Amino acid sequence: MSNREPATQRSAVDDVQESLVAEKYAHKLIRKLRIRLEDRPGKLAEVATAIGAEGGLIGDIESLAINSQSILRNVTVYVDDAAHLDRLLQRLTALPGITVERVVDDVLAIHEGGKLRVASQSEINSLRDLQMIYTPGVASVCLTIARDEAAYRRYTWVSNTVAIVTDGSAVLGLGDIGPKAGLPVMEGKAVILDRLAGVGCVPILLSRGMSIDEMVRTVESIATGFGVIMLEDIAAPKCFEIEAKLSERLPIPVFHDDQHGTAVIVLAALISACRRFGAELEPLRVVIAGSGAAGSATARLLLAAGVKDVICCDRTGALYKGRSEHMNPSKDALAAATNPNGLKGSLAEVMAGANVFVGLSSAGLVSRDMVSSMAEPRFVLALANPTPEISPREAMAAGASVALDGRTVNNALVFPGLIRGALDSGAKRITEGMKLAAAKAIADLTPEGLILPSILNRGVHKAVAEAVHKAWYDRS
Amino acid sequence: MSNREPATQRSAVDDVQESLVAEKYAHKLIRKLRIRLEDRPGKLAEVATAIGAEGGLIGDIESLAINSQSILRNVTVYVDDAAHLDRLLQRLTALPGITVERVVDDVLAIHEGGKLRVASQSEINSLRDLQMIYTPGVASVCLTIARDEAAYRRYTWVSNTVAIVTDGSAVLGLGDIGPKAGLPVMEGKAVILDRLAGVGCVPILLSRGMSIDEMVRTVESIATGFGVIMLEDIAAPKCFEIEAKLSERLPIPVFHDDQHGTAVIVLAALISACRRFGAELEPLRVVIAGSGAAGSATARLLLAAGVKDVICCDRTGALYKGRSEHMNPSKDALAAATNPNGLKGSLAEVMAGANVFVGLSSAGLVSRDMVSSMAEPRFVLALANPTPEISPREAMAAGASVALDGRTVNNALVFPGLIRGALDSGAKRITEGMKLAAAKAIADLTPEGLILPSILNRGVHKAVAEAVHKAWYDRS
Repeated sequence: MSNREPATQRSAVDDVQESLVAEKYAHKLIRKLRIRLEDRPGKLAEVATAIGAEGGLIGDIESLAINSQSILRNVTVYVDDAAHLDRLLQRLTALPGITVERVVDDVLAIHEGGKLRVASQSEINSLRDLQMIYTPGVASVCLTIARDEAAYRRYTWVSNTVAIVTDGSAVLGLGDIGPKAGLPVMEGKAVILDRLAGVGCVPILLSRGMSIDEMVRTVESIATGFGVIMLEDIAAPKCFEIEAKLSERLPIPVFHDDQHGTAVIVLAALISACRRFGAELEPLRVVIAGSGAAGSATARLLLAAGVKDVICCDRTGALYKGRSEHMNPSKDALAAATNPNGLKGSLAEVMAGANVFVGLSSAGLVSRDMVSSMAEPRFVLALANPTPEISPREAMAAGASVALDGRTVNNALVFPGLIRGALDSGAKRITEGMKLAAAKAIADLTPEGLILPSILNRGVHKAVAEAVHKAWYDRS
Repeated sequence: MSNREPATQRSAVDDVQESLVAEKYAHKLIRKLRIRLEDRPGKLAEVATAIGAEGGLIGDIESLAINSQSILRNVTVYVDDAAHLDRLLQRLTALPGITVERVVDDVLAIHEGGKLRVASQSEINSLRDLQMIYTPGVASVCLTIARDEAAYRRYTWVSNTVAIVTDGSAVLGLGDIGPKAGLPVMEGKAVILDRLAGVGCVPILLSRGMSIDEMVRTVESIATGFGVIMLEDIAAPKCFEIEAKLSERLPIPVFHDDQHGTAVIVLAALISACRRFGAELEPLRVVIAGSGAAGSATARLLLAAGVKDVICCDRTGALYKGRSEHMNPSKDALAAATNPNGLKGSLAEVMAGANVFVGLSSAGLVSRDMVSSMAEPRFVLALANPTPEISPREAMAAGASVALDGRTVNNALVFPGLIRGALDSGAKRITEGMKLAAAKAIADLTPEGLILPSILNRGVHKAVAEAVHKAWYDRS
């Protein structure tokens, strides 16, 4: 794994506001071209010019070997697709004195052999080690736990180990690709949790086509071995029912990023935006597009944070007390808790005069006019995935004070610290207070002039963990 | 973790024949006493004398700090129980110029925080790292697997990861202590697999009180995420039915140490014993006490290795074709495959004239007279746990050529390499050929004059893995 930034540069990176994926790189193929070229001035420029002329982007360039006549380089390129790569290669190979010797898929190389490993924390160098780690020594540890169940967290890995449960039915933007093809994503999330918050994660892959009850029963049957259950990339709406049932039945936190993570990062961004524009959170009028589990969780957290006027919309328009068409018990409850002025109408109608738009719905739902109709300050968080309700660029052009999409308002700022804090505190569930504390910690660590801190800033995850830990102890 | 043998001494240890647990230490409590004593000649001797006089055994002694008057030492002692420790402490504190400052439970300290950790193999130092490990880069890995399922083993951790499944219903000699109290044992086994064979293991704890079918269904539901399923410390006979059902349904190896591990280590010990005494394996008459899954698996492996005359006994006596009392389909099949001369009678009766006794039954079943009645060379493997059918000492006194119990004939010589080999070969099940190859590899690496090599000899586990790998490829 080459091209790592040296450790000394890390603190610089930590303070830079960058979205996880710069927009123009988001859907590109990454390839490393091993190119042999004549070693004379201007030759590399020819390569760069050819790549640029074909519309390719260039990443890192490394020199691998030099002899009397030629130099061997790795050139990382970002292209749209395989056909684009072919065109680019044709153009390069047509250049005199230039040979493309290999095209390397760097990403595949990094994932080879998997990204995780269960590592032993103890060594075995002598029979005495074996006697202490295994029989007969281990028996006294077993009996300690058998006598006092509280010792279980102390003398096993469970207090640092999380299950990431998926059936691969809704993986990233890829859809229902199944648990095997989804495993690299679970491993990736596990790497993030380990590297940013020191949390160990075990991917648990459920067979395809299980019913909700079968999934709940299976997770319940194996939950004893873990400190937290994370539900990942399970298709809606079944993921919500699974989360609700498991939360009710298990004595450990059940974390569903789509709900908990989203609610926290939205609140953190709003706290931060208010500070930047000298606004107060409480009097803001917030319109949320989406009344599913994510919308509902976000609405409830904003209310808990003191926002008075939150309106949730579904396809039919605003939810209000007494609405009768297209309702269900969950929407009834949401309508009762929100929309204090009983506003009725379409999303466009209730957005007029609102300060905040939170999009948890679908691509392109919001027009420039709808943003212009909002009241100052106008905060637009368009989080539909992978394409937002309105692009940040368009929203800014329509007069938004702040406009961000899911690449900046990213749950990876939330879940590492929140899970770390949940584990450290021994919490039995994720409380509203823990989520409020996490949002506030993230906002507090946002550098001047930005809305959210960098995901790479370990200090943020540590602060979130401490705030969450404290919130569990201070719960009323 | 102090008191480790330095790396340079390891090769010496590798060649030493030692049982995993020296008999006299097997059921002792281990404690580290922090003792301050006057720093003058003879003082440590007083301490050692007092400990010895009280019947305590002494392990390592470390010097921690020395001042002008006194020296602080850690003295590791082995005592029978808490009351014994108290007596020993009273005697020590009665000595002039000696103070016991602390009693440390070293074993508990080693197990604190657990013995395992899921560690990331990738680093996150830059946004580019995140892009390659997680989105958007990971999508290409997911799609590679979605297109070609064979890529699953290559690009995920599954080809190096094993599930150790237990419900904690039969943990070591401790019985039905449940999955939480059993977890330290699963972690210990995982440490052995990691340190001796580089295999990553995830303990999967099943809830107490599940039915056989629920356990099978649960393991089946989560098996996709693992390369091998190991069943551990599940009470008999349900463990056998679970193994049989899972083996039939899953496309990956299901390993049950009680069966596979026991059969292999018994065969390895017999091959080795034959070499030492210039005997041939084929003409030996072998009597196995125990007709359950372990006995059955052992009998079948010995037959596959060429032994002609194997007789299995249950409580009623020898199994033979046509026996009608206390039979079941599994015993019928075993009777049909073994006992070619149709011997009838009690264990004592069929042991007369036999060369090999393999005990997989219960404590104290074999008398000295029974051993004396055997024919030369007399090989006695008394493997009942924790107390053997006859102690090796008594069996030797009764004329055994070789007599070993479960501390020497230990499955830990088998399972690390066997599982490593199964993973490396991509085997879909554990075959008889793989078990034969493992046994032969172990026997081949036994040092001159011994019956089995040291568990700490990494070369043995490597050789077993290679032999098993080859056996899967050479299968007919």
